[in-house]
Amino acid sequence: MTRVAVLAGGVGAARFLDGLVRVIPPADVTAIVNVGDDMEWAGLHISPDLDTVTYTLADLVNPETGWGLRGESRRTLDRLSELGGPDWFMIGDLDLATHLYRTDRLSAGDPLSEITRDLTARLGLECVITPVTDDRLRTVVGTDQGELAFQDYFVRRRASDPVHALRFDGAETARPAPIVKHALAEADVIVVAPSNPFLSIDPLLSVRGVREQVTSNRAKVVAVSPIIGGQAVKGPAADILQSLGHDVSALGVARLYEDLAKVFVLDETDAALADVIAAETGMRVVVMPTLMTDVEAKMALARGTLEAALDVA
Amino acid sequence: MTRVAVLAGGVGAARFLDGLVRVIPPADVTAIVNVGDDMEWAGLHISPDLDTVTYTLADLVNPETGWGLRGESRRTLDRLSELGGPDWFMIGDLDLATHLYRTDRLSAGDPLSEITRDLTARLGLECVITPVTDDRLRTVVGTDQGELAFQDYFVRRRASDPVHALRFDGAETARPAPIVKHALAEADVIVVAPSNPFLSIDPLLSVRGVREQVTSNRAKVVAVSPIIGGQAVKGPAADILQSLGHDVSALGVARLYEDLAKVFVLDETDAALADVIAAETGMRVVVMPTLMTDVEAKMALARGTLEAALDVA
Repeated sequence: MTRVAVLAGGVGAARFLDGLVRVIPPADVTAIVNVGDDMEWAGLHISPDLDTVTYTLADLVNPETGWGLRGESRRTLDRLSELGGPDWFMIGDLDLATHLYRTDRLSAGDPLSEITRDLTARLGLECVITPVTDDRLRTVVGTDQGELAFQDYFVRRRASDPVHALRFDGAETARPAPIVKHALAEADVIVVAPSNPFLSIDPLLSVRGVREQVTSNRAKVVAVSPIIGGQAVKGPAADILQSLGHDVSALGVARLYEDLAKVFVLDETDAALADVIAAETGMRVVVMPTLMTDVEAKMALARGTLEAALDVA
Repeated sequence: MTRVAVLAGGVGAARFLDGLVRVIPPADVTAIVNVGDDMEWAGLHISPDLDTVTYTLADLVNPETGWGLRGESRRTLDRLSELGGPDWFMIGDLDLATHLYRTDRLSAGDPLSEITRDLTARLGLECVITPVTDDRLRTVVGTDQGELAFQDYFVRRRASDPVHALRFDGAETARPAPIVKHALAEADVIVVAPSNPFLSIDPLLSVRGVREQVTSNRAKVVAVSPIIGGQAVKGPAADILQSLGHDVSALGVARLYEDLAKVFVLDETDAALADVIAAETGMRVVVMPTLMTDVEAKMALARGTLEAALDVA
């Protein structure tokens, strides 16, 4: 039995997890998910990364976008737009039910981790999906426009502003959700998913004690580069590497993770960087295809990542 | 010009108003609407009476029910039900947009009366619709099951519990919405709509200063009986008259309104009660058809009600 904890953002992590639960028993997988992207929208609590991971693993996700639900409609959003309400954040009619369910239970005082557990159980998932914290954590993005709430930066302004700084509001006091500490301690392998290092992994690590627990277990940590050939598969990771003055490459990412992970998984496109990364960061570098174009590719990446981590351990 | 203020609950008041805005210019009509039925539902602020009045006057209402929207669907609610969420309160996909719009603006600190004004303007309404108060007011129903929140009593338990007591949470501190005092002062006629005296009119009157302002203008107040032939046209008014020990008839209603109104409009079915009501309450009693079966009937009732009030004044 190999127990695996995955530090997860949204689409990239969800795809990785989708492969992982096909190569080991789902019950041995715990996804520890970023909530720095969470937002209040018209009174509702939205958890984009939790939903992307959940919808993907429940085989409900919209394959075109990687987020949202398949067969979605927008009766409510179109009407809201007609009324002059906020329509820049795409929320479909089916998706809305998730937010209503979550908000209803949060209003009743239930913690986000319990609500997530019940939602995932209802959808038939056997793996564990938990928010990294039940407390409030919000990524705030410093730009030329001043500080922007995450979704304001990411969706409303289409991640078009150069990012000068990031902070995670609430991080000082946020405690890990109940299962997080245990999952990290018991894991045979901890995977840093191919997510955005700044917007997905960093907020998650900012929760009290999480970064320390991961670094003190560095021997069993493997990170998968989200940058391939100097480009992000999805989202603004490359732009942020650049605007924050990092090398826009897997090497730039590897430097961010060197204290965290023992093993670094690099796409074969970037095989030429393997030696320099290994020499500079001290990580063991493993090269394999990391583009998750179909189920087989996802499974191969999950299998390869686990093997690389277990080889070292 | 006849300026008319209407104290309004939900369906009955909405139908009365629909006739009224067809017999005088809509801009001369102000509907002062009960918000004791308002509720928080999964984080959203729902104002059932405001919506029923608004949808009716915008010709959007579902004619089958008298509330909700025509051509409504329930994608979100069905999905919420599948997730195990609260599904006892019927909220359609289009209706949901109203609640999201309202809640979004309330979250931003806008008062309910301004939000209502903007919504009604957006829907092309020329009359004024205002909540009686921008403050929190909640009808609490005393039953054998203990105290129930209004919609718990009304929708979830289908108004099946005998009502022993009613109280209006927040009434001690709720202030009238900005336009209410002015509308009552400037009105040539104040109409107590054919709404539930206990659940629609009483909470509205409980807001600070409203009852006093209406009674001090008694000479221009006309009340329309919601009870015809000992039965409520809609809803639990007759049951509540009985359980609270009142006469289950238009006479029972007239007694509740005798300090409030100078004129009482009685359905022709109850013509035999006219003399006893007049003798006992001192109100002028006017008999006319009050059942609002179609547009013509609504218009005739509105016209007859105004004439009866103006005759006295």
